[in-house]
Amino acid sequence: MRLEVVTIGDELLLGFTVDTNAAFLARTLSEIGAEIVRRSTVGDEPDRIAQAVREALDRTGAVITTGGLGPTADDRTRPAIAQLFGRALRMDDAVMARIAARFQRYGYASMPASNSVQAMVPEGATVLDNPNGSAPGLWIEDERGRWVAMLPGVPHEMRAMTTDVIVPILTKRYAINGAVVLSRTLRTTGIGESALAELLGEDGHDTVAGLPLAFLPGWEGVDLRITAHDLPRPQAALALERAEAKLRSHADRYVYGLDGANLAAVVLDLCRTRAWHIGTAESCTGGMLGERITAISGSSDVYVGGVVAYSDRVKTSELGVPAPLIREHGAVSEPVARAMATGIRSVLGTEIGIGITGIAGPTGGTPEKPVGTVWIATDVNGDVHATGRRYLGDREDVRRRSAQAALDQVRRSVSRVG
Amino acid sequence: MRLEVVTIGDELLLGFTVDTNAAFLARTLSEIGAEIVRRSTVGDEPDRIAQAVREALDRTGAVITTGGLGPTADDRTRPAIAQLFGRALRMDDAVMARIAARFQRYGYASMPASNSVQAMVPEGATVLDNPNGSAPGLWIEDERGRWVAMLPGVPHEMRAMTTDVIVPILTKRYAINGAVVLSRTLRTTGIGESALAELLGEDGHDTVAGLPLAFLPGWEGVDLRITAHDLPRPQAALALERAEAKLRSHADRYVYGLDGANLAAVVLDLCRTRAWHIGTAESCTGGMLGERITAISGSSDVYVGGVVAYSDRVKTSELGVPAPLIREHGAVSEPVARAMATGIRSVLGTEIGIGITGIAGPTGGTPEKPVGTVWIATDVNGDVHATGRRYLGDREDVRRRSAQAALDQVRRSVSRVG
Repeated sequence: MRLEVVTIGDELLLGFTVDTNAAFLARTLSEIGAEIVRRSTVGDEPDRIAQAVREALDRTGAVITTGGLGPTADDRTRPAIAQLFGRALRMDDAVMARIAARFQRYGYASMPASNSVQAMVPEGATVLDNPNGSAPGLWIEDERGRWVAMLPGVPHEMRAMTTDVIVPILTKRYAINGAVVLSRTLRTTGIGESALAELLGEDGHDTVAGLPLAFLPGWEGVDLRITAHDLPRPQAALALERAEAKLRSHADRYVYGLDGANLAAVVLDLCRTRAWHIGTAESCTGGMLGERITAISGSSDVYVGGVVAYSDRVKTSELGVPAPLIREHGAVSEPVARAMATGIRSVLGTEIGIGITGIAGPTGGTPEKPVGTVWIATDVNGDVHATGRRYLGDREDVRRRSAQAALDQVRRSVSRVG
Repeated sequence: MRLEVVTIGDELLLGFTVDTNAAFLARTLSEIGAEIVRRSTVGDEPDRIAQAVREALDRTGAVITTGGLGPTADDRTRPAIAQLFGRALRMDDAVMARIAARFQRYGYASMPASNSVQAMVPEGATVLDNPNGSAPGLWIEDERGRWVAMLPGVPHEMRAMTTDVIVPILTKRYAINGAVVLSRTLRTTGIGESALAELLGEDGHDTVAGLPLAFLPGWEGVDLRITAHDLPRPQAALALERAEAKLRSHADRYVYGLDGANLAAVVLDLCRTRAWHIGTAESCTGGMLGERITAISGSSDVYVGGVVAYSDRVKTSELGVPAPLIREHGAVSEPVARAMATGIRSVLGTEIGIGITGIAGPTGGTPEKPVGTVWIATDVNGDVHATGRRYLGDREDVRRRSAQAALDQVRRSVSRVG
């Protein structure tokens, strides 16, 4: 089945907010064989919302909208689409009660009056439950079976509703069980796009084992995406297996996971099975490594904590890095990175210590140590390993790549990939 | 003038690549009084490209496309739009020579044969110079004056061409020298969308001082954006001043800055003028607060460092939080947050200490302390202030809002906004 997505909001149209819903919708729907053929973005004007939805309906008869269901005057999706379908809006008491109960549950004395507009439902529309927010979704359909599903724009609300409500509706409605589009992503890090392409050679030019292959470089590394189009599910799965095996035969040591894999979660799993603990000592990343590790729910059984040693004084006072070592080699140096890793391991009593020190820029570089110079040391049960590198890119890029490289260094040390 | 943007590419449609061109185009064009009324995204199929561009032309007569001008088989913008205008593609020798020279300049022995398609130009189209890439842009126009400007999708190429080529063409063509679209954003934090709307009352329903007002909620807070349309620049600037003053008369204490303001940078500036230093003690945010502060270049003259005290043991050993205090009140409690803030201030010898402890979820909540419960304490020269709150949202949301609230608590304490 083909459908269109209309995303609504001035902030999206003007680019103040980046649309992170698009990827989720596209992937989730393609898994059930539904294809998004166009995405349109309009601002908060009712006329333009209605026009975009009407045109999308004329093309495909099936439209998902996100956004514009909030409580304020610039949230116009509900009235615009109600009017497009010629339906009056009426207060739905059950929805109203749910919204009020939600506010009560979260300790508000009363519901703000403005939230009552979220209980307005177009005549004949179906209310779609939104367990994570105050605005319910809406499903509206005309006599010709053309439909619009209105979802909130808040990502975690939209995602839960897509999985729990929209996918079951579409699967049932369109009896989707034949050909699918399946894709798989091998996540690599520690190797550049060109080097990876050379490593894959003829086996991974723009196809691999007969499937299209895309190189998707980013700060986490280079993702390799293979896609099987229009095959029945078992054949598609088999084709992906073959293509993955071919890619791994060349580049397995760089692959840290599949699809949405998070390197921090991979490292936590490796440590958890060994009952090992991690402590971090960060200078240029300023807490980003700890942040990435603790972004993973359940990290507390492995991650103990760390020190952000942004000033040299803190490197000495909290991590025991000898001041003369810093004076002799500079704060950004292999000996200091090693002393940081070993120091945090000793201070916190963990099996693993990680030290990062570098020059994130844009200032602070010298001819000997230009911006982007970073030293990373890992101390795994006393086995200390240090690497130096220079990243191109801006401050954020240098920091993100440093944290990623530190995690990968732990992955390789612990799993002995080398 | 009104125009539409059509972005082209499977990667964009499927959300594998985030469209960072949209914000740049919208801002740059609005500065000269041009308004983007819709953005559409289609994949690499010629028919769908042509259909989307035709419809956009029918609505506004003025379309900018990005993407699909590359050398590979999935770059279809050029032939699709040539066909839409009924023009043949022919090889342009001058363009060909420029592309070949570019490859030579970068040390290639010869130009890859595939790049020659980038020298194909629709009859009657104007070639737009692209100094940063091999694919030139194209301007094509019909007898009714309806036009399409095709730009490459690579952000730095697209940006340079927009500024250097498209803006001058549009300014001249539409004699845009009087009316402009100017907008200003007041960034607020610490108050929800509904409460802010109530606070503004009649002065900020959907207009303020005669200008349209948009509420843009996000994890950093609620941005209030006011826009002056179609006024000469001096009047537009004056109207924005008046609207800003009206909003501030109600909500000034929640406003931490304008437009792209970053709360961490605001806090650093407040501390820098006082020669005060900051130390952080983070539990649930796991380093995110330090990361946010150190994301600002030049933060090292204010930010000394911190401790990520993820486990209770580290709270005691590194911050001096008494173990009985944790046992009695729990790690997520006002007394522990206060002890963390005071502890890090004492350990690092800073004027300001910040302590954050909370339950980010999705697990770890109890009926008394549900997921989202967070305590934040700030110690400013011995003046300790603590606040407790409960955030809705997922783990990332709780953590980001906590770090933001901690920064705002410092802002208010230091600037005595209260």
